[in-house]
Amino acid sequence: MADSPNCDLKSLSPLQLFERVTEQGEKVRALKAGKAPKDEIDAAVRMLLSLKLSYKTTTGQDYQAGLPPKDLVLINNGTTKEEDEDLVDPWNVQTSNAKGVDYDKLIVRFGSSKIDTDLINRIERAIGQKPHHFLRRGIFFSHRDMDQVLDAYENKKPFYLYTGRGPSSQAMHVGHLIPFLFTKWLQEVFDVPLVIQLTDDEKYLWKDMTIEKAYEYARENAKDIIACGFDVNKTFIFSDLDYLGTSAGFYKNIVKVQKHVTFNQVKGIFGFTDSDCIGKISFPAIQAAPSFSSSFPQIFNGKENIQCLIPCAIDQDPYFRMTRDVAPRIGQPKPALLHSVFFPALQGAQTKMSASDPNSSIFLTDTPKQIKTKINKHAFSGGRDTIEEHRKYGGNCDVDVSFMYLTFFLEDDDRLEQLKQAYTSGELLTGELKKVLIETMQPLVAAHQERRKQVTDEIVKQFMTPRKLAFEF
Amino acid sequence: MADSPNCDLKSLSPLQLFERVTEQGEKVRALKAGKAPKDEIDAAVRMLLSLKLSYKTTTGQDYQAGLPPKDLVLINNGTTKEEDEDLVDPWNVQTSNAKGVDYDKLIVRFGSSKIDTDLINRIERAIGQKPHHFLRRGIFFSHRDMDQVLDAYENKKPFYLYTGRGPSSQAMHVGHLIPFLFTKWLQEVFDVPLVIQLTDDEKYLWKDMTIEKAYEYARENAKDIIACGFDVNKTFIFSDLDYLGTSAGFYKNIVKVQKHVTFNQVKGIFGFTDSDCIGKISFPAIQAAPSFSSSFPQIFNGKENIQCLIPCAIDQDPYFRMTRDVAPRIGQPKPALLHSVFFPALQGAQTKMSASDPNSSIFLTDTPKQIKTKINKHAFSGGRDTIEEHRKYGGNCDVDVSFMYLTFFLEDDDRLEQLKQAYTSGELLTGELKKVLIETMQPLVAAHQERRKQVTDEIVKQFMTPRKLAFEF
Repeated sequence: MADSPNCDLKSLSPLQLFERVTEQGEKVRALKAGKAPKDEIDAAVRMLLSLKLSYKTTTGQDYQAGLPPKDLVLINNGTTKEEDEDLVDPWNVQTSNAKGVDYDKLIVRFGSSKIDTDLINRIERAIGQKPHHFLRRGIFFSHRDMDQVLDAYENKKPFYLYTGRGPSSQAMHVGHLIPFLFTKWLQEVFDVPLVIQLTDDEKYLWKDMTIEKAYEYARENAKDIIACGFDVNKTFIFSDLDYLGTSAGFYKNIVKVQKHVTFNQVKGIFGFTDSDCIGKISFPAIQAAPSFSSSFPQIFNGKENIQCLIPCAIDQDPYFRMTRDVAPRIGQPKPALLHSVFFPALQGAQTKMSASDPNSSIFLTDTPKQIKTKINKHAFSGGRDTIEEHRKYGGNCDVDVSFMYLTFFLEDDDRLEQLKQAYTSGELLTGELKKVLIETMQPLVAAHQERRKQVTDEIVKQFMTPRKLAFEF
Repeated sequence: MADSPNCDLKSLSPLQLFERVTEQGEKVRALKAGKAPKDEIDAAVRMLLSLKLSYKTTTGQDYQAGLPPKDLVLINNGTTKEEDEDLVDPWNVQTSNAKGVDYDKLIVRFGSSKIDTDLINRIERAIGQKPHHFLRRGIFFSHRDMDQVLDAYENKKPFYLYTGRGPSSQAMHVGHLIPFLFTKWLQEVFDVPLVIQLTDDEKYLWKDMTIEKAYEYARENAKDIIACGFDVNKTFIFSDLDYLGTSAGFYKNIVKVQKHVTFNQVKGIFGFTDSDCIGKISFPAIQAAPSFSSSFPQIFNGKENIQCLIPCAIDQDPYFRMTRDVAPRIGQPKPALLHSVFFPALQGAQTKMSASDPNSSIFLTDTPKQIKTKINKHAFSGGRDTIEEHRKYGGNCDVDVSFMYLTFFLEDDDRLEQLKQAYTSGELLTGELKKVLIETMQPLVAAHQERRKQVTDEIVKQFMTPRKLAFEF
């Protein structure tokens, strides 16, 4: 770190140590190339060996040039991703498997923990009710430190929820609702404050879009989010472009994170290059900062160190791996995380859905007729080519998108199990399964549209006004 | 630019074009190295040639690898600085010449314009009074677009002043006052609004300092600035850590600048490396943004495009070269600049003064006795070794620090000229010249201290509260 050349090696994170070793290696090479005096080279080599030792002690791994420590793998860099691995980062999700991304492998690669039966049972005991079907069905499948959140909850210590969205277009699809539906449930069962970040600044930086447009999308998207049924007394929704200019606490946390993350680190984590604009390069700090309660002095009465829990799709994890790396160094608790799988495109689970392709999913603005046509025409089927074959061999629920969608939106466990068995046995035809999905989605989307109509500009303003919520801190 | 791959080449700045050529060159090399199909390589080469042509048309120079266009020279990079050139950037000022930095060379290297007699006369005509002695004596020696500011002024169009300070320690020295004393004069003669930025966030990012400490220094420094005699009805002083959290307009301009500057650019301009934190890398946008009137909607009634004039020491120019490069691309006028020379250390003009060495200058907190001792003990003398030699050959005002200080602080032109002649002829001894300086500085510093005592926390608060000033827009 350029600004603390003499700091204690023990206080460095694995990634910082990795960088120090790399820099020292370069220094040694430069000295040798420049034919520096022998004693100078020897001193630099001794320092290099000592740094490598510190690295090994800290990480348990030998230093390998170009291979950063495991907790912060270069997920966006083709050179370290193995041939058959899925590509998952905040801007790309790619897999060649029709079943979708291999989530068990992702847990290993990202270094997170699987949400197993023990954890689900513990949640059930803590909240005294059946866990959400997203948990029961493995839709939220991975976590970081959820045990700590439950410890805090059981000891009556406060925590809060943080989730968000990049408002890239006016139309949201049903997949965009997943983190919000789950967050709403978490908020209800745990009764905690919730902050929702709309990263309009990110969209301005990444897309060919004016600031005004990005902010407009943020407000439009807020309406869809509010229509999920959030409680205005317990929820604060904010646009970065807005809130950064109204909260000194938020900017202070941003600049703290920015001081403790180098370009080398964001290059490794997000794959940024020298040609990227400095806005992109520093943006990760803006997504990190809401993980710290002092970003919201109006909600937490200026209190720092209140535990944060972030429900999000797994592609957002790189931001929070970075955040968790920085947190202890700025005296803040690491945020805990709950990761969801990706919502599949109608055409199949190989890719994440795209808001720019109207046929790739069911949009929240679709009419019942559009929903019917899209599902019938585009939903990838796991059924057989002919009715005869289907009756004989049965359909494949693992790749059938209609069935996947039902696991997200059909809450009745028995009915879902019934459908699965009937489809797998060949008793239920693709057309019949699609019909169930159509009948599930049409009222769901219509009800959303009805609720959204009630969300006036005045209500949006209430949610987006920085204020105290219905909790004492 | 990663986010606008198809944008019109004509809309690109010279530096962006330079980058496009560089990237395309790398692409061609990669294709050749990877034995790509011939037609693919040919197409890439054609694109490269076309980019080089655009570069030449735009800049009037042939593209040379590693040599960015002249307007944005790599001033902080040893490889492009010639052996005998002075090193000048926001963090370093180095020269081997006892007379100080060669400012005429700097004007050529930075591509600014000399403040010549014509310009000084034009200012005199415009304001109807004698220009400040900092102008008459070449202390403000270089400018960018000052003619445009005068055009605007003569056409009754509004402009505003912007200057600032990085609050690195509680104690300011007399050299720190130069830009403020000059800015105060400019504000009085032109009667325009003034904004003063205190970059406490910068100091937090660069130094081993807490956010709280940086903010405290900002408020303490504000007292010294206010003590220069600024009019609270015409002046807004702000700390970044504070104001960023109270103005959506400011952050919006920051993010606009951040979108239009790449890491390659800040690397070239400021010498940042991959090991620098992302806060440093994105900071230049924060110093750039106050150059745009929309950063201060409360002052300019939301009006954009009001011309900005920045008086500052020449070492701050890299920030504003970058700002001027970005301005037209975000639809804003380029800020104009007035550059001052550096204030010499008591020990000699080879280096800029350092606030961390108490003997390197006269501090605003020094007692009359300390001032006397420092000048007598440390002020580098241009006099001869013995009285006899001095009487015979005379002293050298070009390197004598006491005389240099007098050019800054002794307003009486006749007296100064008299002293110069007497010292050069040998009639005046070093001790006598020092005595004049002591008698000039003691009352000046004492008066400053007296005024500073009057600056209460309440007055600081008034200056630092975002508000309308005494101007209609």
